Amino acid sequence: MIKYPGGQSFEKEEIKSSPKKEKKVLLSARNRGMSLENDINISNEYYIEHDIAVITKRPTPINVVKVDYSRGALITQAYFEEQSTTDYNGVFQGKYIDFEAKSTQKDTSFPLNNITKHQIKHLERVIRHGGIAFFIIEFVHLNEYYLLDAKYVIDFYNNQERKSIPYKAIKENGKLIKQGVRPRLHYLDIVKELYF
Amino acid sequence: MIKYPGGQSFEKEEIKSSPKKEKKVLLSARNRGMSLENDINISNEYYIEHDIAVITKRPTPINVVKVDYSRGALITQAYFEEQSTTDYNGVFQGKYIDFEAKSTQKDTSFPLNNITKHQIKHLERVIRHGGIAFFIIEFVHLNEYYLLDAKYVIDFYNNQERKSIPYKAIKENGKLIKQGVRPRLHYLDIVKELYF
Repeated sequence: MIKYPGGQSFEKEEIKSSPKKEKKVLLSARNRGMSLENDINISNEYYIEHDIAVITKRPTPINVVKVDYSRGALITQAYFEEQSTTDYNGVFQGKYIDFEAKSTQKDTSFPLNNITKHQIKHLERVIRHGGIAFFIIEFVHLNEYYLLDAKYVIDFYNNQERKSIPYKAIKENGKLIKQGVRPRLHYLDIVKELYF
Repeated sequence: MIKYPGGQSFEKEEIKSSPKKEKKVLLSARNRGMSLENDINISNEYYIEHDIAVITKRPTPINVVKVDYSRGALITQAYFEEQSTTDYNGVFQGKYIDFEAKSTQKDTSFPLNNITKHQIKHLERVIRHGGIAFFIIEFVHLNEYYLLDAKYVIDFYNNQERKSIPYKAIKENGKLIKQGVRPRLHYLDIVKELYF
């Protein structure tokens, strides 16, 4: 089963182009990750504007099947594809940054089932080549965001029986991200602290 | 006018899903860049498989307007969006790599009109933050590929009256990329030579 990773991007765009659909979109179960994506995007915009880093979201991969050129290159048939890498990458103080952001509605653990094998492989490679790799994990009901080194997640993914990382382990091994207005999530403060 | 940057990705996918369209697709004028994209993608696959670097293509940004969930999340209305960054980025020996690849049918110069202001701004930022930024330029009829430092292109773009970089200047200021089978384009050899 494909877990359409594009859901979030799609809904963001939909809001932009048809405001009346906004309510329905925001209530949709597939949208849980949307506000995290938005929080990270506006944080990244802040970092770009203030010349702190250049980190951007990779667009959602879409397999385009049919295009109607008589209607201004209107795509009439296409499918979301699975992201084989992570959602975000870029450069910060000369270093390559690569991370995945995930939300969970659970309060006691972070389920690993929405991380793909491809993403784990990708992050392993990034680390091997000297990049900085991590996860940003949002506990929605707790209103807490953690930055957790990818090595920890990879190790857990590869070696543990459990299919979720306990909240306690994330609290202990990750770092709580400070929230604000601008930037919304001060996640580069943690990157600086951990990797520089 | 939007210069649908997604054209290339789209056609690649179309070939995958409907082989009978291949011929038409390959002959389409919008496809000129496709073979360069393909050459770079297979070179990057080689580099990943041989654990030399992790450089990937950013998916084409697509603005999804309508999705039919009753038909397996079929996208029924969407538009190509302009890429505000570059097409490729990743990590090589710990350094952040960012580049744009362009083909030209001309033999005497490389026209700058298919590079956007957004891309120039993005590359300026990448350089400021310590990333390695360049262009890969293909002269189709000459069957030559050059790696040209982004600083040179940015300077030309910002300060020259001319709307194209002469072939001679690219030959003098860029580096000819060796062609092969695997990798198809040995462009990281040049990156090593120039930036390490």
